[in-house]
Amino acid sequence: MKKEIRILGVDDASFDKFNDKRVLVIGTVFRGGSWLDGVLSTYVRVDGKNSTNKLIEMINGCKFKPQLQCIMLDGIALGGFNIVDVQMLNRKTGIPVIVVMRDYPDFKKIESALRKLKKEGKLKLLKKAGEVIKVDNIHIQIAGVDLKKAKQFLKISCTRSYVPEPIRVAHLIGQGIAMGESSGRA
Amino acid sequence: MKKEIRILGVDDASFDKFNDKRVLVIGTVFRGGSWLDGVLSTYVRVDGKNSTNKLIEMINGCKFKPQLQCIMLDGIALGGFNIVDVQMLNRKTGIPVIVVMRDYPDFKKIESALRKLKKEGKLKLLKKAGEVIKVDNIHIQIAGVDLKKAKQFLKISCTRSYVPEPIRVAHLIGQGIAMGESSGRA
Repeated sequence: MKKEIRILGVDDASFDKFNDKRVLVIGTVFRGGSWLDGVLSTYVRVDGKNSTNKLIEMINGCKFKPQLQCIMLDGIALGGFNIVDVQMLNRKTGIPVIVVMRDYPDFKKIESALRKLKKEGKLKLLKKAGEVIKVDNIHIQIAGVDLKKAKQFLKISCTRSYVPEPIRVAHLIGQGIAMGESSGRA
Repeated sequence: MKKEIRILGVDDASFDKFNDKRVLVIGTVFRGGSWLDGVLSTYVRVDGKNSTNKLIEMINGCKFKPQLQCIMLDGIALGGFNIVDVQMLNRKTGIPVIVVMRDYPDFKKIESALRKLKKEGKLKLLKKAGEVIKVDNIHIQIAGVDLKKAKQFLKISCTRSYVPEPIRVAHLIGQGIAMGESSGRA
C-alpha cells in the first residue's frame, strides 16, 4: 500500500445536547498520515437519523472522491445518537469504512440510554456494524474491507499518536470551531 | 532556532460580503511546520474595526499562549477591511507578528476601495504596518521581529509549499467549514 493514499477522517464538533438542533461535522482529507489536503463539512441533526445520508452526500459530492481510499469515523454516531449505517455508507460510496474507538463500547449503557430516549430502533444499526476488534491501543469496526487491509490503513495514518491523524485533526477542528479552543487529546 | 517551536497561523473563513455581518476566524497552532497541536477560533465584523482586539483576546486567552513564538496572518485584514493593527497585536501579546501575502499588495486599489467605502481612516493602519518585503515567493510585513529571525520562522514553517503550513491549514479549514469543501491552494 502506498504511503500517500487519501484517507477521510470524520468527527463531529462539540455541541450542547440540550439546546442545539444540529451539529457541525468535519471531514479532513489526508494524504497518508501527515499532509492535510482538504477540509469538508456538513451538518447533522442532534440525535437524528440523517448522518448516513449526510455523509454520503458530503463524500460523493466532493472533488476528492476519486482519490479517497478509506473513510475513518470517530465512533459510530455523530451528534449524540445519530448513528451511521456503516454498511450503507460503504455501499453507497464504494469506499472502505473503519470506525475508530478508543475504548470498547459499553453496549449495555448505550442500550439503556436508547431505551430511555425511546429510540430502541437504533439498536439494530449498532448491531449491524459488526464485531468490535482491538488493534493495538484502539478498537475498530470495519465495513467493505478486511482486517489485514484495515490494519494497513491504520499503520499509514497513525503517525503521531495511536489515533489516526485524519481523525485527530477532525476532532481538533471540531472543538476549536465550536468552543473557540481545542482542548487537545492524544 | 528549534524546529518544534509553536507558531499560530490565522486566516478568515469564506463569507458573503453582501449578507454576512461577521466572519469566522481560524487560528491553527502548529509545532514547527508539520504537527497541528490545536485550533482556535473567533468572529470579527465584516469591514469592521474589531479584528485587532478579537485576535488579542483569542491569543492571550488560550492555553497555548506561553508556548507561542510567532503569529502569522494571512494578509493584514480579516473579514474584508477589518484591518489588523500589527504593531498593537505584537505589543499586547508580546509575540512577533508576520503578515504573509502571496502578491505585493495593490495599495492604489485598496486606497480607492477604502475611499468608496468612506473608510479612509483605515489607510493609516495599512501604512503603519510597515515595509512590504519580498522573501522567496511571498511578501511579508513584520512587527516585533527582525528580518533575519522572520526568515527563520518562515523556513521552519514552509514545509509543504511556499505558504507557511499554519496559514495554509487555517485557510483550508476556513474554506471547508464555510463552503462545505475547501477549494485548495498551493
